[in-house]
Amino acid sequence: MNYKMMGRFTAQILLIEGLFMVPPLIISLCEQELAAIYGFLATLGICAVLGSILFLLCKNAKNAFYATDGMVCVAFSWLVLSLIGALPFCISGAIPKFVDALFETASGFTTTGASILPEVESMAKGLLFWRSFTHWIGGMGVLVFLLAIAPAKGNGQGFTMHLLRAESPGPSVGKLVPKMRKTAGILYLLYIGLTVLDIVMLLIGGMSVFEAFCTAFGTAGTGGFGVRNDSIAGYSPYIQNVTSVFMLLFGVNFSCYYLLVLRQFRSVFKDEELRLYIAIVVGSVALIVWNLWGYYPTAEETVRHALFQVSSIMTTTGFATTNFDLWPSFSKTILLCLMVVGACAGSTGGGIKVARVLLLFKSLKRSIAQMLHPRKVQLVRNNGAVVDERVIAGTNAYLSAYVLIVFASFLIISLDGFSTGTNFSAVLACLNNIGPGLEVVGPVCNYAGFSVLSKLVLTLDMLLGRLEIFPILVLFSLQTWKNG
Amino acid sequence: MNYKMMGRFTAQILLIEGLFMVPPLIISLCEQELAAIYGFLATLGICAVLGSILFLLCKNAKNAFYATDGMVCVAFSWLVLSLIGALPFCISGAIPKFVDALFETASGFTTTGASILPEVESMAKGLLFWRSFTHWIGGMGVLVFLLAIAPAKGNGQGFTMHLLRAESPGPSVGKLVPKMRKTAGILYLLYIGLTVLDIVMLLIGGMSVFEAFCTAFGTAGTGGFGVRNDSIAGYSPYIQNVTSVFMLLFGVNFSCYYLLVLRQFRSVFKDEELRLYIAIVVGSVALIVWNLWGYYPTAEETVRHALFQVSSIMTTTGFATTNFDLWPSFSKTILLCLMVVGACAGSTGGGIKVARVLLLFKSLKRSIAQMLHPRKVQLVRNNGAVVDERVIAGTNAYLSAYVLIVFASFLIISLDGFSTGTNFSAVLACLNNIGPGLEVVGPVCNYAGFSVLSKLVLTLDMLLGRLEIFPILVLFSLQTWKNG
Repeated sequence: MNYKMMGRFTAQILLIEGLFMVPPLIISLCEQELAAIYGFLATLGICAVLGSILFLLCKNAKNAFYATDGMVCVAFSWLVLSLIGALPFCISGAIPKFVDALFETASGFTTTGASILPEVESMAKGLLFWRSFTHWIGGMGVLVFLLAIAPAKGNGQGFTMHLLRAESPGPSVGKLVPKMRKTAGILYLLYIGLTVLDIVMLLIGGMSVFEAFCTAFGTAGTGGFGVRNDSIAGYSPYIQNVTSVFMLLFGVNFSCYYLLVLRQFRSVFKDEELRLYIAIVVGSVALIVWNLWGYYPTAEETVRHALFQVSSIMTTTGFATTNFDLWPSFSKTILLCLMVVGACAGSTGGGIKVARVLLLFKSLKRSIAQMLHPRKVQLVRNNGAVVDERVIAGTNAYLSAYVLIVFASFLIISLDGFSTGTNFSAVLACLNNIGPGLEVVGPVCNYAGFSVLSKLVLTLDMLLGRLEIFPILVLFSLQTWKNG
Repeated sequence: MNYKMMGRFTAQILLIEGLFMVPPLIISLCEQELAAIYGFLATLGICAVLGSILFLLCKNAKNAFYATDGMVCVAFSWLVLSLIGALPFCISGAIPKFVDALFETASGFTTTGASILPEVESMAKGLLFWRSFTHWIGGMGVLVFLLAIAPAKGNGQGFTMHLLRAESPGPSVGKLVPKMRKTAGILYLLYIGLTVLDIVMLLIGGMSVFEAFCTAFGTAGTGGFGVRNDSIAGYSPYIQNVTSVFMLLFGVNFSCYYLLVLRQFRSVFKDEELRLYIAIVVGSVALIVWNLWGYYPTAEETVRHALFQVSSIMTTTGFATTNFDLWPSFSKTILLCLMVVGACAGSTGGGIKVARVLLLFKSLKRSIAQMLHPRKVQLVRNNGAVVDERVIAGTNAYLSAYVLIVFASFLIISLDGFSTGTNFSAVLACLNNIGPGLEVVGPVCNYAGFSVLSKLVLTLDMLLGRLEIFPILVLFSLQTWKNG
């Protein structure tokens, strides 16, 4: 372990997080929310003191940096982000218990959107803005952000490679790894551009500036924290449809947009993941509309709610325009399945990822073919190119870890005594960074009823889901720390 | 495809199944159950006619036989067994609808024990005996039986190898493959010996001969069909405990007993799967006793019910001494997890199998180690020996297929509109060959309420579970039939 490097890195994280708290602080100052102002200022002080100490202690860090360090760094940074990010809620008294504030903040940064708040409209505006802002920050990964803006130092390449590997969603970083800094810059421009476009579209629909920003943050990060108690249900059909479309856009692999910028329309059109993603969305909406027929007064309403909920769940955003927990069983089960699949790799969404599901299908098909023809060499292809066996092995390991984590979490939170449907959907909703589940944690309910232990387990699940399991496993693995 | 070989094989299956129907026919004759006698005689006639036609048509079969043929043969045989085995119930009028009779019989042969009958005590004794007998036949695999008794022909080795691979439970047939015929004989003696011992112990407890036979069949096959409406709940604590112990014994890998016969106590004692199996049973019982404390009047009763239900669910038998659907959430979730794990490989039980769970853990550990040290060659070991990479790849493919099947089935049966807990536990209970699930399909309920489509899906799940997925997938795979 390169502890000094890690320390310096953590100091940078604290600095960045402090900077990110300035906009919500300004809002609180304008609105004269005294408790919130006090919360932000105290947190900024803590960031400054802790960051300076760490920076001084770890000044002369060596440049040696390995894959393990990358994973540990990423996992540790996300823990720090969540712990520090929770302070304004706690200090201001808006969320008195620290474990609740931690749950809410981790839910924000991991773009989950699961909440312990029974109602949000009475919260200080600065804090509400911070809550939604964490989604936006968490969406593209604060560490990638750090790489994009921080000045390159000698050890740049190895360091950034390992970090990017550990933080980027999806089975392979693919074409984006070389020229990382430049690519990250372009991705940020795309991310910011799309967010601005969303804000403009929402403003055209008559939303207030504050609500448009917060809603766009929740959409862009595929997070799902809203500023109203009924999520998006109270807004006009126009705003609901705009949000549906933007959720879907943010669930697409960002390298597709990158290729569009490069005018490689053909490769975007032929992208297997994108095709499967669109097919799943269209298929699910069609099945739910068929299943719900007659449930809502008009066909327009049925399609609108079906599309919104499918977009929201599949991209793991978690906004809601209707209480889908009251939908018939079949529609609810489709949503549960979409929870597990999740969005495209390389998007801001969570879940197993469409690309990984595609790989699992292909490697399963290959295994069957191998059973039938044991002597034939079989290769798995993606978009025509042969997939590295390591990626396949990694995908299989991911699935094993995923299943084990689902059952372990399911077991622990069942100690609280809720129903099987509640527990199972709560674990899926947190691990896949969606937010609302079914029954007790349904779209009109919240996670406040769980015990401290369950909240910690679900917080860990959110982090595991956001960092795609392995960095967190490495952080908590004994072997990592034995090697000194 | 070697169609003629398959035809001859199917003819043999029909002959064997006909022979197996003789004991229940005799019981019906003694009890003068006219409808049942008619049912059995008609089925025997159908077996004789169909079998003779197939035998004559496929007389001159070639000996070429490949892995694909083995898989298709096994999958097809189990379909035939279930279809023909359902006829007595249907013809006698005991279960009027064919799809129900098929569900019940597939549930019998696959040793699931899921029932669509709201009550069984009014059923003809011959039919009840046949129902339990299917468990015993299905337990060790009727095809292995065929190999053990059928005269060896020229093509013996390749043929039996492929069949055994396809039908045997667990990730690797291991040491038992060579000298298969002799080994199969010894395994049958062990199976019969343990069953007889169980019957004797039950008779000592005061059970009637008929009930002792049926209960022992259900225990030996880890099936779970009982002859009383309240399963095992109405029997004395002695009989309940005897059944707990024998369920656990039948959940052990039979190669352990084989090694005991060879006096290799050391390798049995050191067997990693056996150790994990015992650890899981002891751990689960302890946790459930802790969770249930105060639920039953005495400690003896708490321990007895906890042990019985853990043994019953983990070995995928499905007997019940109490309505565990009323237990607190944590205990129910433990049972749901045990459903997925299942019994040891090479036992009569179902589920993913302890050996496979062990392998998944080890290969996951290896994957993490590989991420940290990409250049180091890492091997997975089991009982000290290096595990073939193909077994690991197969285990990973199994898990992928398992997860996909769970979600697909879950989605289809949710069309019937039952709760998430019902649907999820029904799929797990059928795919893992357990029988009772939770809520609507709980231990005091049954599967009668499902639609025809759901019953067919669940029947397929039972067959998929019993044959460990791949033979059925190969049977229904287009590629198999394209190659002619």
